Amino acid sequence: MDRLSVISGHLSSSAQPAPATSTTPSSPTRSGRKSALVDPLQFMQLDAMLSAGERSLRQRARRVLEEGRDDKLLNELYERAEFSPALVDLAKQLGPAGLQIKGNGCPGLTQSETLVLAIELGRLDASFATFYLVHSGLAMASINVAGTPEQKARWLPRMARYELIGAFGLTEPDYGSNATGLQTTARKVPGGWVLNGHKRWIGNATFCDIIVVWARDTASNAIKGFVVEKGMKGFKPHKIDNKMSLRIVQNADFVLDECFVPEDNHLSAAKKFSDGTQMVLESSRAVVAASAAGCLLGAYERALQYCMDRTQFNKPLASFQLVQERLMRALGHLQASILTVIRLGRMMDEGQATMAQIALAKAWVTRTAREAVALCREVVGGNGIISDFGTIKPLMDLEAIYTYEGTYDVNMLIAGRLVTGLSAFV
Amino acid sequence: MDRLSVISGHLSSSAQPAPATSTTPSSPTRSGRKSALVDPLQFMQLDAMLSAGERSLRQRARRVLEEGRDDKLLNELYERAEFSPALVDLAKQLGPAGLQIKGNGCPGLTQSETLVLAIELGRLDASFATFYLVHSGLAMASINVAGTPEQKARWLPRMARYELIGAFGLTEPDYGSNATGLQTTARKVPGGWVLNGHKRWIGNATFCDIIVVWARDTASNAIKGFVVEKGMKGFKPHKIDNKMSLRIVQNADFVLDECFVPEDNHLSAAKKFSDGTQMVLESSRAVVAASAAGCLLGAYERALQYCMDRTQFNKPLASFQLVQERLMRALGHLQASILTVIRLGRMMDEGQATMAQIALAKAWVTRTAREAVALCREVVGGNGIISDFGTIKPLMDLEAIYTYEGTYDVNMLIAGRLVTGLSAFV
Amino acid sequence: MDRLSVISGHLSSSAQPAPATSTTPSSPTRSGRKSALVDPLQFMQLDAMLSAGERSLRQRARRVLEEGRDDKLLNELYERAEFSPALVDLAKQLGPAGLQIKGNGCPGLTQSETLVLAIELGRLDASFATFYLVHSGLAMASINVAGTPEQKARWLPRMARYELIGAFGLTEPDYGSNATGLQTTARKVPGGWVLNGHKRWIGNATFCDIIVVWARDTASNAIKGFVVEKGMKGFKPHKIDNKMSLRIVQNADFVLDECFVPEDNHLSAAKKFSDGTQMVLESSRAVVAASAAGCLLGAYERALQYCMDRTQFNKPLASFQLVQERLMRALGHLQASILTVIRLGRMMDEGQATMAQIALAKAWVTRTAREAVALCREVVGGNGIISDFGTIKPLMDLEAIYTYEGTYDVNMLIAGRLVTGLSAFV
Amino acid sequence: MDRLSVISGHLSSSAQPAPATSTTPSSPTRSGRKSALVDPLQFMQLDAMLSAGERSLRQRARRVLEEGRDDKLLNELYERAEFSPALVDLAKQLGPAGLQIKGNGCPGLTQSETLVLAIELGRLDASFATFYLVHSGLAMASINVAGTPEQKARWLPRMARYELIGAFGLTEPDYGSNATGLQTTARKVPGGWVLNGHKRWIGNATFCDIIVVWARDTASNAIKGFVVEKGMKGFKPHKIDNKMSLRIVQNADFVLDECFVPEDNHLSAAKKFSDGTQMVLESSRAVVAASAAGCLLGAYERALQYCMDRTQFNKPLASFQLVQERLMRALGHLQASILTVIRLGRMMDEGQATMAQIALAKAWVTRTAREAVALCREVVGGNGIISDFGTIKPLMDLEAIYTYEGTYDVNMLIAGRLVTGLSAFV
Repeated sequence: MDRLSVISGHLSSSAQPAPATSTTPSSPTRSGRKSALVDPLQFMQLDAMLSAGERSLRQRARRVLEEGRDDKLLNELYERAEFSPALVDLAKQLGPAGLQIKGNGCPGLTQSETLVLAIELGRLDASFATFYLVHSGLAMASINVAGTPEQKARWLPRMARYELIGAFGLTEPDYGSNATGLQTTARKVPGGWVLNGHKRWIGNATFCDIIVVWARDTASNAIKGFVVEKGMKGFKPHKIDNKMSLRIVQNADFVLDECFVPEDNHLSAAKKFSDGTQMVLESSRAVVAASAAGCLLGAYERALQYCMDRTQFNKPLASFQLVQERLMRALGHLQASILTVIRLGRMMDEGQATMAQIALAKAWVTRTAREAVALCREVVGGNGIISDFGTIKPLMDLEAIYTYEGTYDVNMLIAGRLVTGLSAFV
Repeated sequence: MDRLSVISGHLSSSAQPAPATSTTPSSPTRSGRKSALVDPLQFMQLDAMLSAGERSLRQRARRVLEEGRDDKLLNELYERAEFSPALVDLAKQLGPAGLQIKGNGCPGLTQSETLVLAIELGRLDASFATFYLVHSGLAMASINVAGTPEQKARWLPRMARYELIGAFGLTEPDYGSNATGLQTTARKVPGGWVLNGHKRWIGNATFCDIIVVWARDTASNAIKGFVVEKGMKGFKPHKIDNKMSLRIVQNADFVLDECFVPEDNHLSAAKKFSDGTQMVLESSRAVVAASAAGCLLGAYERALQYCMDRTQFNKPLASFQLVQERLMRALGHLQASILTVIRLGRMMDEGQATMAQIALAKAWVTRTAREAVALCREVVGGNGIISDFGTIKPLMDLEAIYTYEGTYDVNMLIAGRLVTGLSAFV
Repeated sequence: MDRLSVISGHLSSSAQPAPATSTTPSSPTRSGRKSALVDPLQFMQLDAMLSAGERSLRQRARRVLEEGRDDKLLNELYERAEFSPALVDLAKQLGPAGLQIKGNGCPGLTQSETLVLAIELGRLDASFATFYLVHSGLAMASINVAGTPEQKARWLPRMARYELIGAFGLTEPDYGSNATGLQTTARKVPGGWVLNGHKRWIGNATFCDIIVVWARDTASNAIKGFVVEKGMKGFKPHKIDNKMSLRIVQNADFVLDECFVPEDNHLSAAKKFSDGTQMVLESSRAVVAASAAGCLLGAYERALQYCMDRTQFNKPLASFQLVQERLMRALGHLQASILTVIRLGRMMDEGQATMAQIALAKAWVTRTAREAVALCREVVGGNGIISDFGTIKPLMDLEAIYTYEGTYDVNMLIAGRLVTGLSAFV
Repeated sequence: MDRLSVISGHLSSSAQPAPATSTTPSSPTRSGRKSALVDPLQFMQLDAMLSAGERSLRQRARRVLEEGRDDKLLNELYERAEFSPALVDLAKQLGPAGLQIKGNGCPGLTQSETLVLAIELGRLDASFATFYLVHSGLAMASINVAGTPEQKARWLPRMARYELIGAFGLTEPDYGSNATGLQTTARKVPGGWVLNGHKRWIGNATFCDIIVVWARDTASNAIKGFVVEKGMKGFKPHKIDNKMSLRIVQNADFVLDECFVPEDNHLSAAKKFSDGTQMVLESSRAVVAASAAGCLLGAYERALQYCMDRTQFNKPLASFQLVQERLMRALGHLQASILTVIRLGRMMDEGQATMAQIALAKAWVTRTAREAVALCREVVGGNGIISDFGTIKPLMDLEAIYTYEGTYDVNMLIAGRLVTGLSAFV
């Protein structure tokens, strides 16, 4: 198996047995006191809940990301709020993009496999996970559900190989929680459409090659999708400055000012917005939940290792009651989060989950992770405010993760509406 | 299937398919607004994680307990802090006692089946679950692991049929968190042993027929088990008054004052205390975690139904944002608790869990349930302080559940010791 | 000073200097390890914030209540959910009832003095505080603001001497959070009024002599007050059973069925319901906040003493990090609660507080106390579920206190309406 | 009063009556919906607890800081983790540095005045408050307590005028929580001392002119203070990179490598380390508590204004129950924090507070502020992760504030040691 990627690899090599023991902890270079059982996934043997293929996927993703990780670079990018092509290269190591898309060079993962991968992405870095999700889970997935076969063939294979990077333009400045109220317009003109409007928070948009933009047809009022390409006249993204969460993700505002898009770039296969798009949004919301669990996983590992290595009053920090209790509380939260994510994936693969289940899982996991990551940050003490020690970045990142793809409140009320039959949004 | 009990039934009838849909919600007699999906186990289809046999066991336990439940009686018993033989009758409806014991008329459940049953017991009433656990999971299980074949045959079949009720005497007034420091003594005399000491918190002890007492051999210092029978001279239990949690459980203090126990009542098969007893304590701690999840399940169902039925400002309570968010938070906590319990059962059945995993699960689930039950109590408002409305009793009961079978702190430090290799108890 | 009561005493003896040091801790009979500084009020010298008169009042109330307290009786009453005339006797020791009422034998306290007293009442027992408040702060205060001079002279002096005990009938089964929607009617008939309706939660109502009932005039739709006397035809209270909070308080439901009340019992001085009544409700809500702080004060003292006295692993519980941190967290919460209550009293005495300030203080203090009392209960471990150990009763009582006189939610939204100018009730 | 500074001004103008109404809210340029009562200090009229002089000081500090504030600059500095001389200029506008130091051109504030000022500093920006505190409250205060009259006259007047900026070198890499274990050495040589060691976290140290360094005399083992000046051989600070809290504060590590300091720079007036230094550390810890309360004050104001201005589903955010409750919870926390800080100042001015009281106040207030600022961040939704919206910076800053000047745990155990007489540090 020459240089098979993690993802394509999992397609061909699920016969390979999973190693009986877990991978090594994340900080192999530190010569510290070793805990009896550092790896939190081992504690309740969560790997045993995965199929052989899922386990293999996870372990190889872990291996690729551990080998390719460059914490120094990540921390510098975070400090400067910059993205780097090196992250695209790292993504490539994981195999072709596209997650659940079948065909066109995409890996065709199950939802469960996607979530398992997202845990590992989030464990490395939540900005990296977000970049990955926006490209594969939003941009590519939208083209896959709304595009014609020709459109798919035109864009997806190159996107799967990261020759084109994608973004996804749905949110608008005044329409966050209720995105379908969007105001951007598409006016039919000969040979194409003219777009006008204002989009906000669009991840990857400063450097991407193509961006899927959703706009309201001025004639029919229906929401339609368009592929806007870099350099098109009337489209210019502006990076959002002073963002203190997911700082490596390049979010942009942009104005569409009489931006002409040819008919070939109109994603015309979807009859209406909710066709397929609902599935895209559901899947991406679940991925966000998984990446939050991964984010906590990474923070917990780093905090535990620090508390084993660091002494105060001549004892390892991990031997103080107040520290040990916080670590175990974080571990309990982590386990419950991963169990929730795994269950969600199973339901989705069986076609049993609606947005309500996904919304509750996303809200609950991100809330729980937010609480637990603060515990991890705390036990690292003064050093805990420096990125290099691995807990403050997850803490900052979870503020965004807790809030995007539906705020905590919106997701809780989506779940509540199903359970009670009563809408409490307004 | 003539009068097959739930538990024996599951042995013979696992071929029966589980009903595709869940049972009805718990308050069928109230004519209230029905929620679209009241049953919280349905929300993430947690039943689908169970084997057919486990699901069948759970559903029949649910049916038996719903048919046999007498909330008026339970509330009166709780009010008066009394036990009733009616609860023994209800337990009988569930089939023979003994949980995981194989042979001697016992059902030989798996650990997972035991936990699933415990969830349903706790859902009905945590005191009932505790009575059940003390008899089956502590008294019978101790005889099973420490008794000779003759001793097992002498007591277990009658206990399985509830002809004899058992109790378990380990805890002492000054040895709660470190029970193995116990001070009760056993002095060998011709024909038997003489016990002296003081036991505390012994559930069922005011009315039980036999009680397994652990005492320290004055000669060898080893801890040995004895079956003390009702009416033996030198043994008299005193009910602990003013107990505000698990009020239906009759906990007693008792002094053993030169209490003679014949040699036949010395549980002599165990070579040392930890043989088998460790397994008994592990299993019972897991059962407590499960009953806590069940306790929350019951409180959540009652709170949700109340908020659907009750209006304020001409709207159902469940339609207020602040109420709906609390309900969904409780649901998220509930799901995570049950997922943790199910995972724990699987590990134990596979021989993969040590006390550390059980301890963290117990501490985490009881903490989580305690937090969530308070939310359920709160949404019931003023009526929420009355037992009849189904949430204040679980709130009070969780104070005991959170604390016994290892306090939260002790369990967290047991887990922490495994993870860090460092003991932080003192 | 012959047998001067605390309250009348404070009127005549404020020249007496307050003792320089605080009173002794609450458990003088226990010979335990003494902490360096048990008294939490000393920690930040909160007494120094009081005027000499307030301090004197507080210290004498403390002395009277410590001398008169009978924990065994209180725990038995709690266990049986009964009231006792002994509590009326204890109240008498504190001097005449009536709190802020001037004249008619009442003490004419300031609001700040009232809150200081309420802290001490709550510290002893929250049920006792509630009995006291219902009689003085609701029943007497209503007669004082709505009654004619003749009516005041007829009832208040005897009530001040506890020869008559009062209750207050405002809440109805379906009108908790919005009490002014009440449905009880008053129909004018020759010589008086006929009342019909259903009241709920009326404290003291099973044994009281008179009860102020609010009803809607069928002619004018205005809400009017009436004094219903024990034994009047058509009035019969039923004790609410199975109440698990403030169990010593006798709350009743009652139906008014063509209950005739003579014109002399119509409280006719108030032109409309809100005149004066608003002030009564504001004051009583502030008193509830203060009694919650007192409830926490009592629980904290008991928990601290227990943790000093009790050893595990051969060390006092108070020397374990996890225990000590919880105690200090409770102390921080306690101090902040008392500071909030004192500030509230000052504002009210200066006429600067509206219901919004009172509502936020009540909601915040009861929430904070609820959280802190749970910490106190927890550190007492297994014994913590028994009333005798002083923490489970406050925990149960705070469930009611957190909820009555406006639920947490209602009070938060009352405050929010003032701050934002936006009503969020529905 | 020509161009009198805030601080010197308060000395001469306390006769000026405080304005009856509060200052305007913090975002005057936004034309938004005005709340009925935006200013949270008004809600419970906390200004009324201050003396006229304190109130005047606070209001003029508010005015100076509001006039001089440049949020755009602050956000840019935060983004780039840089300091700016413009902040020194702003500090100058507040009057001479030195806080509580009397003489040598310093303002000689009381502790209460210092805390009131610190609230306003923290409200503007916690990094600015930290810069201010390090210069005045640590560097200058150390020279004042440990320096000879000649040393004070040499440095303090120029520092009071900000002609020299100071830093404070106590913490070392392995001695955070137990700073007195420090390992840096001072070796007496002819004409002075030679310092060797490693200091960490030293605020202002990258650009300051002088730094007070504490080192252990190799001869006597006593800890002694030295003034190290910029440019001295053997001293070179290195900025700590990737710091994600208080990013404007320039913290440095530095090695002292055979650094010669002349005898004149040895702060020789203090007979031992704890003389005076204890007072410096106590005062600065109290200031940190106050700045945390200020940090929350600023975040709350910004969150409230945002929720008034911003609509979703065609309603102001502030009208949603879930949002309004969080805002009011934050207000309750804010009020309690300020009340605690004010009480602490009063005790300290009366000589009644020990480190235990200060430690509990610092731990409690920073914990409470940390919780409340997260609520403020949350209600600002997606925009809440951008510095410009005023809540994410306080959230990040509180991670440091919660941890420095004694971690939460250390401070809680300092308080617990006084209350229980039992040390639980190890």
